[in-house]
Amino acid sequence: MHINDIKSFVPPVRTLMGPGPSDVHPRVSQAMARPTIGHLDPAFVDMMDELKVLLQYAFQTKNALTIPVSAPGSAGMECCFVNLVEPGDKVIICQNGVFGGRMKENVERCGGIPIMVVDEWGIAVDANKLEDALKANTDANIVAFVHAETSTGVQSDAKTLCEIARRHDCLTIVDTVTSLGGTPVKVDEWQIDAIYSGSQKCLSCTPGLSPVSFSERAIEKIKGRQSKVQSWFLDLNLVMGYWGSGTKRAYHHTAPINALYGLHEALVILKEEGLENAWARHETNHQGFRAGIEAIGLSFKVKESDRLPQLNAITVPEGVDEAEVRKRLLNEYHLEIGAGLGSLAGKIWRIGLMGYASRTKNVLYCLGAMTEILSDMA
Amino acid sequence: MHINDIKSFVPPVRTLMGPGPSDVHPRVSQAMARPTIGHLDPAFVDMMDELKVLLQYAFQTKNALTIPVSAPGSAGMECCFVNLVEPGDKVIICQNGVFGGRMKENVERCGGIPIMVVDEWGIAVDANKLEDALKANTDANIVAFVHAETSTGVQSDAKTLCEIARRHDCLTIVDTVTSLGGTPVKVDEWQIDAIYSGSQKCLSCTPGLSPVSFSERAIEKIKGRQSKVQSWFLDLNLVMGYWGSGTKRAYHHTAPINALYGLHEALVILKEEGLENAWARHETNHQGFRAGIEAIGLSFKVKESDRLPQLNAITVPEGVDEAEVRKRLLNEYHLEIGAGLGSLAGKIWRIGLMGYASRTKNVLYCLGAMTEILSDMA
Repeated sequence: MHINDIKSFVPPVRTLMGPGPSDVHPRVSQAMARPTIGHLDPAFVDMMDELKVLLQYAFQTKNALTIPVSAPGSAGMECCFVNLVEPGDKVIICQNGVFGGRMKENVERCGGIPIMVVDEWGIAVDANKLEDALKANTDANIVAFVHAETSTGVQSDAKTLCEIARRHDCLTIVDTVTSLGGTPVKVDEWQIDAIYSGSQKCLSCTPGLSPVSFSERAIEKIKGRQSKVQSWFLDLNLVMGYWGSGTKRAYHHTAPINALYGLHEALVILKEEGLENAWARHETNHQGFRAGIEAIGLSFKVKESDRLPQLNAITVPEGVDEAEVRKRLLNEYHLEIGAGLGSLAGKIWRIGLMGYASRTKNVLYCLGAMTEILSDMA
Repeated sequence: MHINDIKSFVPPVRTLMGPGPSDVHPRVSQAMARPTIGHLDPAFVDMMDELKVLLQYAFQTKNALTIPVSAPGSAGMECCFVNLVEPGDKVIICQNGVFGGRMKENVERCGGIPIMVVDEWGIAVDANKLEDALKANTDANIVAFVHAETSTGVQSDAKTLCEIARRHDCLTIVDTVTSLGGTPVKVDEWQIDAIYSGSQKCLSCTPGLSPVSFSERAIEKIKGRQSKVQSWFLDLNLVMGYWGSGTKRAYHHTAPINALYGLHEALVILKEEGLENAWARHETNHQGFRAGIEAIGLSFKVKESDRLPQLNAITVPEGVDEAEVRKRLLNEYHLEIGAGLGSLAGKIWRIGLMGYASRTKNVLYCLGAMTEILSDMA
């Protein structure tokens, strides 16, 4: 490629029904194009305060430390682990998909000791196994799990898992990248200690930011650390100085101003709709999609009680070239759906109905396009 | 604040002449509002390839590993340190401002041993002191310094410092957050091993991304590490799999799609103008600004040969309330300039002429506004 051939990039207009990013609300795109202002501008600081209130609403928490990390969900995950895990800490990780494995990587890189509690990909985390692991490891001090496994479309019972962890005096780290805004996430009621999510799934925002929230118990642990947090960029002791309350903000890093405009707008939209209404919409569109999927003879990989309404794992029928279907959807319909990952590669499609993508138009479009392609290939 | 009172955020329209973010080019804002597509979409992967070529041009390098880190400049700095510094590594840091201190924090958090070579804030790094430090520490293996100190408006002689480091068989890590696109940065010619910058200064883009580039020597060191990189998010061994060449991209994290559209557009604009022309424009506008500043009786903190044309450190005259001047510029003129930091707090203003903000209109507007306010306050 020669540099002189490079022009302004004008992307194709897609319908995003993969595992994320999902369709961005047009109001969010508009917000991101608004004039950039300084990261210490009083107008921006007011916006940050609003953003915290809006995120507290989305997470259903009064936690003061509720902010967006200035980087994607993977950095939000790392923010939780590097701040809470000290060398030698024993962390029980319930794994039932890709992202539990990433948690293990995080714990190891913090010098912690991961204890894996493994469930099959495609089923929910088994609470009894967690209970057993905690009984066998009385010195564990953190439990981590994924609420909504993006790699499989499975939802686990966060409330019960947190209750068990707390009973064994462990802090909890919960991944809600794919659940926040799509299905109930109740930080205070479930007493979650550290939680992270992503902007690009059920919040209808662009990718690049990771909302996080930390309980008082978590903050106590962070403030009482023996060792410094290994990441300067993600050290909450420093980040709190910038996002903290009060008019005096200590410069830490330059916030991604326009991305934060987008997240602010996405959360205003969520508030206007109402969180419960957003959850109900995701459920309704999932049921509509499900009826259509079953009508065309396809089936779900995940059993009904464990299904995430916003991320549908559909079993690829025997003899169908799953990659070809995705390719045709993209090329002929500008419609993106996702492939399976890891042990489910080639076996499932992952079809997202998240955020602004969770609407009747997308449900019917996807069903129509899949029907046409599968008939054509039969 | 009650959540029901929170509306869509419509920022004031500012002129950004602080230490960054600087004025964003209107084409960049427009690009960021374009439709989001998937991070594995073939159209997006093509855009990534273009972005690498454009960044190679901006950095004047053929380095294959030339990419934007999906987070602000501070994360780009951390990316360089966590990948290159292993526990026990001795790193010589030339410090002449805030950001050298941040480098020290990074080295310590990586388990490295920082050797500080300190110069006064407001003057360039002394090459002789570096030479002496290298002679006194023959086991040092990395030299790090800031090319353009955003906290003081000082430029150091990166070419000479890199030459000395190389002669002592050290890798170099160079901060060009404020120089890239504004003054010459020549990675290959100067044989820099690891370099990072920011999107929000002389590139006319919004904040949130950090262009980085690594030499073959740097990659060798990264691949030969004894220990894993402590950050999963910033581990280049993993990041390379996503940004690497070839059609198969391994999913690492979800890229900040729309922010990358913005950076792509900013770099297309830079290419259209031509790098040398951009450097000349920054110099010309600096000279115009300088003439005006001197005409109204103000002076520069930094001696002429060390000045950054894109970031002017102006000495606050005796008896002038510097914060009041900034406040009035912001409130009455919607014009942002910066305060001094650390030992220069209260003593200087930092006035940026970076990227799209480096134009005659801004020069004259700022001079006019300052003249009015200073006359009024006299």
